[in-house]
Amino acid sequence: MVARAFGASSFILADAKDNEVKDAVQKISVSWGGKFDFVMELPWKQVVQEWRRKGRLVAHLTAYGENIETSDVMTRIKAAGKDLLVIVGSQKVPRAFFSPEVSDYNVAVGNQPHSEISALAVFMDRLYDGRELGSEFDDAKLRIVPQKHGKGVAKS
Amino acid sequence: MVARAFGASSFILADAKDNEVKDAVQKISVSWGGKFDFVMELPWKQVVQEWRRKGRLVAHLTAYGENIETSDVMTRIKAAGKDLLVIVGSQKVPRAFFSPEVSDYNVAVGNQPHSEISALAVFMDRLYDGRELGSEFDDAKLRIVPQKHGKGVAKS
Repeated sequence: MVARAFGASSFILADAKDNEVKDAVQKISVSWGGKFDFVMELPWKQVVQEWRRKGRLVAHLTAYGENIETSDVMTRIKAAGKDLLVIVGSQKVPRAFFSPEVSDYNVAVGNQPHSEISALAVFMDRLYDGRELGSEFDDAKLRIVPQKHGKGVAKS
Repeated sequence: MVARAFGASSFILADAKDNEVKDAVQKISVSWGGKFDFVMELPWKQVVQEWRRKGRLVAHLTAYGENIETSDVMTRIKAAGKDLLVIVGSQKVPRAFFSPEVSDYNVAVGNQPHSEISALAVFMDRLYDGRELGSEFDDAKLRIVPQKHGKGVAKS
C-alpha cells in the first residue's frame, strides 16, 4: 500500500506467497483507483537479473548505505533518469544485496535503525520531490475530500 | 523507532501498555545514542489537554486531512514555530481527533490509504526539511559507517 500510495507502478513480493496481502492490495486499487501490479513468488535473483539485463537500475534501501541526506546518492539516482527497482528487505537480507552485482545503489534513509516501510515512503517521496502525494488516481470509486476538520469521502 | 530516527524527542503510547515495545526502544537508544523518552499508559485526553494548556500545537496525521503536498498546511505549521505533538492513530481513531478542540491541524500525507508509520516518517522528514536524517546521536555505542557497497559499524 505504501508503494502504491507513493507512486510505484508495481510491487514484487519475491520468494514468498501471501494471498491475503495480494487480495488486500488489489481491493485497495479497485476502490481507490490507479493501476498497480502485485506479483509474488518470483525468486529475487531472477527479478534482479531480468531487470538489470534491460539496463535498468537497482536501489537497495538499507541503513548501512549512503546517507540520503548527507551524500549525493539521490542526485546520482535522479541524474541517471532510468527506471528503478527498489529493494526493501525484511529481517536479515542476503549479503549479496549489498554487492554491485545486485544493487547499483545502497541507500540509507538515515543511518539509524527504524523501519523498512518508512524508508520506502521517504525514499519515494524524495525521488519524486513530493509530487506523488498530490497526484490523482484514475478510475477511483472512492476519493477523499481533504478537510481541515472532519472526514469526507466522495463516491463516483 | 521511526519517531526517534526522524528526530522526535519522545513518544507517548497513550491508553496502552506494552513493555516489550518500551524495552526495544530503550535498547535502541542505549546502543545507537541520543535521548529519547518513551511514555505509556497515559490517557490521550490528558496528554492533549496538558499539551494544549501550554500553548503548544497538535497535528493529527490522517488521510482525511489537508494534503501535505497540495495545501499550505506544512507552511502554516512551520510558520507557527511551536512545539508539536503529532498524533498517529492505530486502526479507528476517536472522532474527536479530527475536531479543533484536539487537533490544530489534520494533515494528510497523501489522501490515499497507506500506513501510519510511513505517514509519520514523511511528515517529520518534511517538517525538518530532511536535516534530521543527517544528524548524529550523542553517546552512541554503535555508529554505522555509510558505504556504497557493504556493511560497516564502528564501536565506541
